[in-house]
Amino acid sequence: MSSYQPVPADRFTFGLWTVGWRGVNTFGDPVRPALDPVDAVRRLADLGAHGITFHDDDLIPPGSSDTEREDILKRFRAALDETGLKVPMATTNLFSDPVFRDGGFTSNSRDVRRYAIRKVIRNIELAVSLGAETYVCWGGMDGAETEAGKNDHAALDRLREAFDILCGYVREQGHDLRFALEPKPNEPRGDILLPTVGHALAFINELEHPEMVGVNPEVGHEQMAGLNFAHGVAQALWAGKLFHIDLNGQRGIKYDQDLRFGSGDVKEAFFLVDLLESAGYDGPLHFDFKTPRTEDMSGVWESAAACMRNYLILKEKARAFRADPEVVESLAASRVPELSQSTLGEGESLSDLLAEEIDLAEVGERGYHFERLDQLAMEHLFGLR
Amino acid sequence: MSSYQPVPADRFTFGLWTVGWRGVNTFGDPVRPALDPVDAVRRLADLGAHGITFHDDDLIPPGSSDTEREDILKRFRAALDETGLKVPMATTNLFSDPVFRDGGFTSNSRDVRRYAIRKVIRNIELAVSLGAETYVCWGGMDGAETEAGKNDHAALDRLREAFDILCGYVREQGHDLRFALEPKPNEPRGDILLPTVGHALAFINELEHPEMVGVNPEVGHEQMAGLNFAHGVAQALWAGKLFHIDLNGQRGIKYDQDLRFGSGDVKEAFFLVDLLESAGYDGPLHFDFKTPRTEDMSGVWESAAACMRNYLILKEKARAFRADPEVVESLAASRVPELSQSTLGEGESLSDLLAEEIDLAEVGERGYHFERLDQLAMEHLFGLR
Amino acid sequence: MSSYQPVPADRFTFGLWTVGWRGVNTFGDPVRPALDPVDAVRRLADLGAHGITFHDDDLIPPGSSDTEREDILKRFRAALDETGLKVPMATTNLFSDPVFRDGGFTSNSRDVRRYAIRKVIRNIELAVSLGAETYVCWGGMDGAETEAGKNDHAALDRLREAFDILCGYVREQGHDLRFALEPKPNEPRGDILLPTVGHALAFINELEHPEMVGVNPEVGHEQMAGLNFAHGVAQALWAGKLFHIDLNGQRGIKYDQDLRFGSGDVKEAFFLVDLLESAGYDGPLHFDFKTPRTEDMSGVWESAAACMRNYLILKEKARAFRADPEVVESLAASRVPELSQSTLGEGESLSDLLAEEIDLAEVGERGYHFERLDQLAMEHLFGLR
Amino acid sequence: MSSYQPVPADRFTFGLWTVGWRGVNTFGDPVRPALDPVDAVRRLADLGAHGITFHDDDLIPPGSSDTEREDILKRFRAALDETGLKVPMATTNLFSDPVFRDGGFTSNSRDVRRYAIRKVIRNIELAVSLGAETYVCWGGMDGAETEAGKNDHAALDRLREAFDILCGYVREQGHDLRFALEPKPNEPRGDILLPTVGHALAFINELEHPEMVGVNPEVGHEQMAGLNFAHGVAQALWAGKLFHIDLNGQRGIKYDQDLRFGSGDVKEAFFLVDLLESAGYDGPLHFDFKTPRTEDMSGVWESAAACMRNYLILKEKARAFRADPEVVESLAASRVPELSQSTLGEGESLSDLLAEEIDLAEVGERGYHFERLDQLAMEHLFGLR
Repeated sequence: MSSYQPVPADRFTFGLWTVGWRGVNTFGDPVRPALDPVDAVRRLADLGAHGITFHDDDLIPPGSSDTEREDILKRFRAALDETGLKVPMATTNLFSDPVFRDGGFTSNSRDVRRYAIRKVIRNIELAVSLGAETYVCWGGMDGAETEAGKNDHAALDRLREAFDILCGYVREQGHDLRFALEPKPNEPRGDILLPTVGHALAFINELEHPEMVGVNPEVGHEQMAGLNFAHGVAQALWAGKLFHIDLNGQRGIKYDQDLRFGSGDVKEAFFLVDLLESAGYDGPLHFDFKTPRTEDMSGVWESAAACMRNYLILKEKARAFRADPEVVESLAASRVPELSQSTLGEGESLSDLLAEEIDLAEVGERGYHFERLDQLAMEHLFGLR
Repeated sequence: MSSYQPVPADRFTFGLWTVGWRGVNTFGDPVRPALDPVDAVRRLADLGAHGITFHDDDLIPPGSSDTEREDILKRFRAALDETGLKVPMATTNLFSDPVFRDGGFTSNSRDVRRYAIRKVIRNIELAVSLGAETYVCWGGMDGAETEAGKNDHAALDRLREAFDILCGYVREQGHDLRFALEPKPNEPRGDILLPTVGHALAFINELEHPEMVGVNPEVGHEQMAGLNFAHGVAQALWAGKLFHIDLNGQRGIKYDQDLRFGSGDVKEAFFLVDLLESAGYDGPLHFDFKTPRTEDMSGVWESAAACMRNYLILKEKARAFRADPEVVESLAASRVPELSQSTLGEGESLSDLLAEEIDLAEVGERGYHFERLDQLAMEHLFGLR
Repeated sequence: MSSYQPVPADRFTFGLWTVGWRGVNTFGDPVRPALDPVDAVRRLADLGAHGITFHDDDLIPPGSSDTEREDILKRFRAALDETGLKVPMATTNLFSDPVFRDGGFTSNSRDVRRYAIRKVIRNIELAVSLGAETYVCWGGMDGAETEAGKNDHAALDRLREAFDILCGYVREQGHDLRFALEPKPNEPRGDILLPTVGHALAFINELEHPEMVGVNPEVGHEQMAGLNFAHGVAQALWAGKLFHIDLNGQRGIKYDQDLRFGSGDVKEAFFLVDLLESAGYDGPLHFDFKTPRTEDMSGVWESAAACMRNYLILKEKARAFRADPEVVESLAASRVPELSQSTLGEGESLSDLLAEEIDLAEVGERGYHFERLDQLAMEHLFGLR
Repeated sequence: MSSYQPVPADRFTFGLWTVGWRGVNTFGDPVRPALDPVDAVRRLADLGAHGITFHDDDLIPPGSSDTEREDILKRFRAALDETGLKVPMATTNLFSDPVFRDGGFTSNSRDVRRYAIRKVIRNIELAVSLGAETYVCWGGMDGAETEAGKNDHAALDRLREAFDILCGYVREQGHDLRFALEPKPNEPRGDILLPTVGHALAFINELEHPEMVGVNPEVGHEQMAGLNFAHGVAQALWAGKLFHIDLNGQRGIKYDQDLRFGSGDVKEAFFLVDLLESAGYDGPLHFDFKTPRTEDMSGVWESAAACMRNYLILKEKARAFRADPEVVESLAASRVPELSQSTLGEGESLSDLLAEEIDLAEVGERGYHFERLDQLAMEHLFGLR
């Protein structure tokens, strides 16, 4: 049995804002002290992580002077160099400041939209200088509480304009950087633009450079819409668009919980890891969680370590599941491999298919034995096989 | 004030299965008698509808002989001719029969997938002969209860294969027919493939003939995922893909209620009609509702009439809302028109934008007055303006 | 037609924290300035409100010295006197401070539980001195993210202990004060103790002085569990336990939106007002809403005014609905009055009932005409009758 | 390690309607043959079950003559005698027949209400003659789609009347039988009366003989409202009202899935078993599941066996969790035992508490270490400890 001790090769990354979350929400004051980014780097490296990510404002407090900014970056870079921790991704905070109260790229205010693009570009330069290959965009405030206040057609036009501008900029600069859109159905807005992986994938197809933009699905965000996360990720993979992924936990349709990975819907977490590993996803495994306010800093680090540990546990289980001869036999009994056969045979004409007959009574009696297959998955999850 | 009396020019259509629903569900036996399709045609025509739609099996009971089929069609055509009712859309039942217990186009069983395509093609011929221009596809059984039993990558491949075959067939036959995919998140399967408008739009982009395929969003289906229906429809319109629409009502995230149009989330119904009318959507306004089991046949016809009436009521309110000078002024105060201005000026270079500065404190204080705007919408809804 | 101008006799009250909410949430910084309680009093009085309510910490910033406290209270009392605004209810903040990170009355920490009781008692004295008759208790942090960390049996014991202590205290002091429990399913905790009106009613029955404790249901809180708010309130009324009510809006199962009253599920708001007015509820009509972060202070006051206005609009509509002869006739056709007849006749023995026969076929055909009735309600809502 | 082979002493019971479900739902025809109750008895006995339960109509098809009824019962009793299978519970079908289209005990039609009571009493006699000690009542059709059509106050009066009649009858007959109410939020009605465990507990307190009535919570029913099932069961246990329990699985807020036990929210299933075993619940462990339509009869029996097996697996894990010294230590670190200490000391007066002071800064820093505790639970779930 594995020790489940993460190493950088496992590609685990953490948002600076995750371990640094102080616990402020609508109903509560901060419960934990501010975390020095340098401490975050060191601690995550100690835990075996591969990388750290950040919003511009996580690292550089808004209002910092250029000198302060340089000092912060110098210390941060030194910590990265010292620990070997990478920065594979960065993102922009387009939601906390009051100017973004009606959104960033799709604020009704043109000056805010312009500022949002400027803020992103400034941080892209920092991200690229730190080696980031992916730039995540979460437009959390791009939405509405009343349909009357947001012209969706115009909003989608502006969102497309923003990404066309950003992609153009990145190409012009010759940066090796791709964008990943992060969908979310609601919170903090009543309804957010591009609420699911599907909507984001559809949007990307309308861009000038769709090849530069993919998605960054987050476990809890799809589950907040009651959607099966693994199915959403599968469609993103099928479209060649899984550029990044946010792993965490959620217990059903409610406020955004950002629980540690594995601790929400355990079974869906198993099937997600099974999918990612089967599909050969080799991007960062990024944890975007918030340690509950009940915890002090020791609890934060326990949570962070457990995120990685749970992934490694589920990865081992997923491998064992796929290697289990009884599972292989059960998949066949469920005709799972048969779905990979094309419906029309190679070179077969449609007229053959049209001429065919089916014995409805007989085929209607056919059982699919999914219950047995699912139970086998559960037994692997339970550690019984 | 309008009489809200529907006429065919209003383009209201009804599924034969809606007025014909006998009330069978997981917990209940039929409560209403079988409805003769000819009676449905006559009654809907009397009520002022424009058209009727059907699944193959609604009209022709499964197992009918060719002669029986012809007899049924003869009577049905005669009723259409007599009343002037149209058949603008048809669809296929790929869910009721036990052979579809694991889906139609994505059943793990290849013979079922082939049968599903055959069944669709047979009904396409009927649909076209009756003048249908849209063919709706709802893959309600194309999904899973366990991720282990369905290879999503293969399922999406098969779904694409099916639509490529169908589009190829329609082109070959020279039919003037477009397909409209109907998304649904769950029920009757635990999780259904293409769960939302977004996922369907994204899927369409992967087809050989994406121009032939659009979506048929249904009010309740998106609301079953807690999504804002008007926003979803807006994205479909933006993508040029609103080929058809299913109007009904739903009260939140629960089983598929199929309430009569208007009677679920009233305010969202208002904004939906406002959107459809503003956008100039000119396709069928198709009601896909199920009258509650409490009702006898008189209640079914009351419901059907009320679906149309509610649309007309909301249409008048939406027009009055848009024409109200105070609303126009309020939209401006909310900077709604400003979102239609491009973020970069015409001919403006990005460097101008990058050189600009924003006064965060000042712009952060800016209020958007959406509460006033939303309240104005409500006052129109209440009939107070 | 009424002018819908509220007056104190309408019994509308507002939480100081509602109009004073500055817009802080998990993702956002404050967008509005701090509101002086004295300004809140004056403004609400101007708008026609009857009263203002508060958490201890809303009025007296935590950490205030005794002198500061007295100064604040002096100004506050003067404003109340000047305007005639009442304080019919008060409550305690047992959630913002980090000490409450695992709850108040049911924190695993005994010293915190003791402090929570002390904090409540201190504010009860203030509330009583200001004339409050109801004391609301919302145990928002009394819950858990992991079942392992909270012994529910012990938690319910402690909760009962707390209320037995508080009721004992109030009786001893001879105060004329009743408690009202406010249920909520989740947020800010993953799962909160007493998640619905039902759970709270059941809990009250286990207290030493159940007659002193009722419920304070909040529209959005029940709707966050997908429950029909009017039905929950009806059960509270039936049990004689509707001591207070929190009116606001919510659009389905998601984070706690606290929209202005009327603007969420409009139809359910109509039926709620219809219920409250029909039942003769004569307690405060308390608005517990949060103006969206998009709004500046003018939007806050627009929202507050609209809460009251929407109630008055719906009240007039509900009265017209009940007075409409067609509605009366329709209720009869739906056999609504028949439900008020006892199932066994007066003096009738069970054996009569047992000897009776029913014609299942005939009675099974009976329709209930609820669609017509519901449509009549909608037409009143639309202002068409 | 246990073999997880169920035996009658495990008290596992199954509804005849669960293994006998033929797969009919709103969208689908039957997929499986009718199951002879005698075969159900034999097969469940073979699998190691303790008992079988039924609705009247499951066992005796509606419309059976008295002779047919006697024949069926004779065969059924013989099978019970032969196998030793018990009938610890029975219930009434007050939902399938069209007469119940507006409910049973709370139908607006008085003749239906009377028939419903008669139907229950008839089956109570059968239940008692077969040794049942619990009589479950699920009023699935007792609800509404429109608030206008159901007077809740009257409905609750009628529901109380029905249970007062039934309890009176059972007392008069001297039967040793208790009632268990089964709450459900919706489906097949839009909103059902007594939607949650809490509402049912509260209702019971209003009865003439509350001691005769408890609850029968069902996993999926509470989860359909997004409620934590274990917390609901804990409150029922605390109130001494857990008379029976329905075990199954559900994946979030959607239609009623009735998955096999263990296969929905796996972690909540673990904590549920932990609770039932810790609390010493010794009633039947009743599985109320529906095997998905994908399965043939072999799948039904696999599901049934897996329900029991999953319970036994989780029971062993829960015991190991509680016995793990690190868990014991972790519970202490989380101050879980401290919640069992009364907040006021024995004999302590409130004035002591009121005189006490707390160091908010210090206590506010206290962490609760729930993340570690929860992770320990997960490691037990994963079979790693």
